[in-house]
Amino acid sequence: MKEKPLILITNDDGVNAKGLIELTECLRDLGDLVVFAPDKPQSGMSSSLTSLNPIKYRLLKQEAGLAVYSCTGTPVDCVKLAMNDLLDSKPDLLVSGINHGSNMAVCVHYSGTMGAAIEGCILGIPSMGISLTTHSPHADFSECCRIGRKLARRLLREGLPAGTYLNLNVPTTPQVKGIKVCRQADGRFVNEYMRSENALGEAVFWLTGSFEEAKPIRPDNDMLALNSGYASLVPCKIDVTDYAFMDKLKAMMCDERD
Amino acid sequence: MKEKPLILITNDDGVNAKGLIELTECLRDLGDLVVFAPDKPQSGMSSSLTSLNPIKYRLLKQEAGLAVYSCTGTPVDCVKLAMNDLLDSKPDLLVSGINHGSNMAVCVHYSGTMGAAIEGCILGIPSMGISLTTHSPHADFSECCRIGRKLARRLLREGLPAGTYLNLNVPTTPQVKGIKVCRQADGRFVNEYMRSENALGEAVFWLTGSFEEAKPIRPDNDMLALNSGYASLVPCKIDVTDYAFMDKLKAMMCDERD
Repeated sequence: MKEKPLILITNDDGVNAKGLIELTECLRDLGDLVVFAPDKPQSGMSSSLTSLNPIKYRLLKQEAGLAVYSCTGTPVDCVKLAMNDLLDSKPDLLVSGINHGSNMAVCVHYSGTMGAAIEGCILGIPSMGISLTTHSPHADFSECCRIGRKLARRLLREGLPAGTYLNLNVPTTPQVKGIKVCRQADGRFVNEYMRSENALGEAVFWLTGSFEEAKPIRPDNDMLALNSGYASLVPCKIDVTDYAFMDKLKAMMCDERD
Repeated sequence: MKEKPLILITNDDGVNAKGLIELTECLRDLGDLVVFAPDKPQSGMSSSLTSLNPIKYRLLKQEAGLAVYSCTGTPVDCVKLAMNDLLDSKPDLLVSGINHGSNMAVCVHYSGTMGAAIEGCILGIPSMGISLTTHSPHADFSECCRIGRKLARRLLREGLPAGTYLNLNVPTTPQVKGIKVCRQADGRFVNEYMRSENALGEAVFWLTGSFEEAKPIRPDNDMLALNSGYASLVPCKIDVTDYAFMDKLKAMMCDERD
């Protein structure tokens, strides 16, 4: 570990979210911190980019070992802009979170928190997203901070393989039993919309829904770990190629029936 | 193949984009088509969801074998809302595109076109994204349509494994040499922002940049195929778990040094 590692912190709930503020506090003594986060909530923004409009950022706070910036862009914009315009050296660690709400299972695809972690990983920074399994703005983040800090220390010491990032989810139980290294649970959301009406009498749809795990349930998945009172830690890959299917697909493409 | 398969078509360039219109034409005789696409450009929206605002959709056109809807949401919203509110049966195929612009390499993470294909796959539909490697609104999509149609026929006949979707990119060369089944190229964008000023004299940043492939270059990747005049076809997985790193990560988490 360097004497003063550089840690980049971001999230998708915005720079004023309790989860980000508590995360920043608990990592404070581990290095020089740069917080570069959206100026407004950006939940469910995945790895989206702002391409048709310009983005801006501004310094909110600067003190010894900590600088806080807000940015008009998405979580991925934040990571990209911090890396392209602000930072002189590559951070030793990127932590995105602590998200208000779970990002287990397929939520890794929808989450802005995880979008930022994916971007950090693409840019060569050991990166992880941290999420607490409640959307409450006033949630108790203490256990989550304890576990996240422990993991941050290990990542600063050992790094991660190129192209691999981490998805940490922590349950709201007062005493988390430990961290389980897991695979991503398989499933989908169902009953995803509440139908309503606007003032013009038009049908409008609000996103809602519940997660339904696919059967048969695969052992060692993140949902099982969380439901048993453990924090789940899924190592994830930037390379989404389905290598196991490549040969079959090649054969399928050689079929000359049409 | 069923006598009249149901094909769901969407994109991220919007319901009026040439790529979507030409795709729809070329798939017309393969089944009953439902086009359900964003009412405005949604490029770079990845798998983002609209969670804080309601969304709406409306029928634009209905004729024998074809219904066209526009939706106020993102590409993923389009797929979810079509599946939750409109369609009585699960489509036999989802095709997202044809995107105006390449979605090779890590662009699979940023692309709204691919976000829709990912969502279709999560919801159990054989799904693919198709992209042409030019952003021109007036591009010639004929080769791309020919190849996309061929692939669509095969997917209708053979389906895809659960949890696997396809990323097809087609170069703009007049005669594409064929389709190469590839892995995702490894790399990142560099020089990602053009700094400018707004009317208030504030610094603003416009997304730009160029793709830099990671060294050593991995053989059989999609970028190499495209540069050699082939269409690239990458099979991709919803499950992003890095299985190869799980044991090492478990060992790392058992280290009790702190």
